[in-house]
Amino acid sequence: MLFGINTSFSQNKIIVYQSDFGLKDGAVSEMKGVAIGVSADLKLYDLTHEIPNYNIWEASYRLFQTISYWPKGTVFVSVVDPGVGTSRKSIVLKTNTGQFIVTPDNGTLTLVAETYGIAGVREIDEVKNRRPGSGKSYTFHGRDVYSYTAARLASGVITFEQVGPELPKQVIKIPYQRSVFENGKLKGTIDIHDVQYGNIWTDISDELVKKLNLKYGDMLHLKVFNKGVLVHESDAPYSETFGSVPEGKPLAYLNSLMQLSFALNMGSFADTYKIGSGSDWSVEVTKK
Amino acid sequence: MLFGINTSFSQNKIIVYQSDFGLKDGAVSEMKGVAIGVSADLKLYDLTHEIPNYNIWEASYRLFQTISYWPKGTVFVSVVDPGVGTSRKSIVLKTNTGQFIVTPDNGTLTLVAETYGIAGVREIDEVKNRRPGSGKSYTFHGRDVYSYTAARLASGVITFEQVGPELPKQVIKIPYQRSVFENGKLKGTIDIHDVQYGNIWTDISDELVKKLNLKYGDMLHLKVFNKGVLVHESDAPYSETFGSVPEGKPLAYLNSLMQLSFALNMGSFADTYKIGSGSDWSVEVTKK
Amino acid sequence: MLFGINTSFSQNKIIVYQSDFGLKDGAVSEMKGVAIGVSADLKLYDLTHEIPNYNIWEASYRLFQTISYWPKGTVFVSVVDPGVGTSRKSIVLKTNTGQFIVTPDNGTLTLVAETYGIAGVREIDEVKNRRPGSGKSYTFHGRDVYSYTAARLASGVITFEQVGPELPKQVIKIPYQRSVFENGKLKGTIDIHDVQYGNIWTDISDELVKKLNLKYGDMLHLKVFNKGVLVHESDAPYSETFGSVPEGKPLAYLNSLMQLSFALNMGSFADTYKIGSGSDWSVEVTKK
Repeated sequence: MLFGINTSFSQNKIIVYQSDFGLKDGAVSEMKGVAIGVSADLKLYDLTHEIPNYNIWEASYRLFQTISYWPKGTVFVSVVDPGVGTSRKSIVLKTNTGQFIVTPDNGTLTLVAETYGIAGVREIDEVKNRRPGSGKSYTFHGRDVYSYTAARLASGVITFEQVGPELPKQVIKIPYQRSVFENGKLKGTIDIHDVQYGNIWTDISDELVKKLNLKYGDMLHLKVFNKGVLVHESDAPYSETFGSVPEGKPLAYLNSLMQLSFALNMGSFADTYKIGSGSDWSVEVTKK
Repeated sequence: MLFGINTSFSQNKIIVYQSDFGLKDGAVSEMKGVAIGVSADLKLYDLTHEIPNYNIWEASYRLFQTISYWPKGTVFVSVVDPGVGTSRKSIVLKTNTGQFIVTPDNGTLTLVAETYGIAGVREIDEVKNRRPGSGKSYTFHGRDVYSYTAARLASGVITFEQVGPELPKQVIKIPYQRSVFENGKLKGTIDIHDVQYGNIWTDISDELVKKLNLKYGDMLHLKVFNKGVLVHESDAPYSETFGSVPEGKPLAYLNSLMQLSFALNMGSFADTYKIGSGSDWSVEVTKK
Repeated sequence: MLFGINTSFSQNKIIVYQSDFGLKDGAVSEMKGVAIGVSADLKLYDLTHEIPNYNIWEASYRLFQTISYWPKGTVFVSVVDPGVGTSRKSIVLKTNTGQFIVTPDNGTLTLVAETYGIAGVREIDEVKNRRPGSGKSYTFHGRDVYSYTAARLASGVITFEQVGPELPKQVIKIPYQRSVFENGKLKGTIDIHDVQYGNIWTDISDELVKKLNLKYGDMLHLKVFNKGVLVHESDAPYSETFGSVPEGKPLAYLNSLMQLSFALNMGSFADTYKIGSGSDWSVEVTKK
């Protein structure tokens, strides 16, 4: 118990895990066991472990999407690490909104850094912050470095400063086209699919959408490009609810992040039109 | 901490979540983050997030199947909501057995209401019981209304009465054929599959099965109908254990809910004979 | 609360669950609800519920892989039970490393018993250690016996001795070829795949690998046999990191358990070469 000490720290004993490990083997359980070994008082939750293998963009997006719904002081661990064993750094980023992300610095923090701001970055000192007994040869970084460090940080065993040396307030970023309003057109990127339903979510905010002076029922024209090549065109009414169009018909709407999205009511827009997501997928949207 | 107040409430700080969101994106994590923001003392568990998209029958069945195994005072959140944005009400039902379900009133409570009884129904007051900062435009109801209200209820921040206005003790129900014994035949519905193994579970209780005066080893004749059309017939011995028939052979047995079920030992009855579940799928069973 | 009593027990109120139930139905939730009904202070975690149906070898492997990362006193529940209803015993094993596994004795403990040693074995007394109200007829053992007993043990309601009668310090074991170094060849079994990535993991330890006097970059020759029949041959350099070979190329490495493994960088070795795992799959490895 740590009452009476470390009271200036904002950590709240909560860790939220994300990875591309899936839940079929023991990897996630090993990470959690190591954390509980640091402090049985920790409360462990999951973001997702179903990030597609090595998909750093999606890891970045899921953090961006969810971290603001957790209390200040929460420690996130994200392990999507195609470069394990290469020279990428292992870091902890503290956001301006008071949350911590423990991760390889490989692009995973692209959207979090842009959206929530960087209060500080520390490189993990793998001499001090590594599971005792590990490191003889092969290391499972998710378990031996990231989860172990997250547990020490979340429980107050170490401060943010004790993670390791301070780094400049910058992270590795994945290049992508940002959303803009130009010549009467909205342009942007398909950030992600609403995977369960197949809706496509762009990075075009409600603020940009206002430039089109839309009211519900107005028809939008959508063009989708893959690496700059037009691969899909369709019309969709700007809608307040899915139920406002017939089953199987397209609609445009603002998703829970207040970003312009496209869906088929009771169907999959992405599967039906074979549309992907990530930095290779861009859109143009006009009012008809 | 709430010691000393609200002691007349039966809530136990436990929330159990169900949805059709899957675990690939951030939706479930957002719901849990919002709950922990209400009270870090809450204990959050899952029923399942793999309800097939929009399948209200299965949502109803999973609640029916599991809630009695959790302590009195547990708060369940079920979000399978094809009508989001339409006129379905957002409610909290208190069962006669002392549990709470927070859900859209769209048929999800069909089997819970019939089985456990209704102690009370409250419509969620979305002015008071909505996540602060949400509601400006698009709302993710699972997160901003259902999980937020469940967290306030489970933690004792509000009483059941403070959920919102009292409604009549009734819920929207999905029509389906109830189990009966008529003219020497058992009739009923295929409620669900045991999804991992492909066994089919009917709603025919052990009390009805007794009408056939069976002993283990007696042969049963099964007819399966889809929307009234006969699609499968087979014979299966009434069995105490799966091991009492050879691998790959059918058997009839009472499942963990004491309801008549059919399986292939070490195989999938549902896949092999292409049999579905829900209110469109009925059976007739006779003793040979 | 149990302060002041049972202080000589090492249980730590933590239960970790494993099964082949998947997460689509209510089975796992029922098990956890029953445990929380025994003591709301318990902390419940998961190893995996995606063990392939009835695959006792994999259940054994996952326990072997993960239990040492959890604190002493942790109680594991493993329910992969093709023989439910047959004469296999329901037992609790205490390892020499101070952990408990509650399981049917059907081979699930093969690798745990060999690796961590047996401090004691108790047969579950199903009269005393069975959920009240269950047992009238059909029993869901995972819920009514294993989770219920695990909860009583983990919470300190019962001691290890109160689980039931003492049995000899032995368990049912699955036969398999153990790893050896003979005539310049390493021989062993493909224990498992790294399922998310398709890497194949053998049971050949780093100690055995040393017999080949390897340095990073040395080429290994791999033969894979299924039930003794040669089904695959290839060459792979012994590597420190995945990034040391081009994308799509094979490499040999020591996995997180310090055992010889084979992978394709950014690809699936198992899928590409159609290689399985378990006691039917053996390998021979030589230095070229």
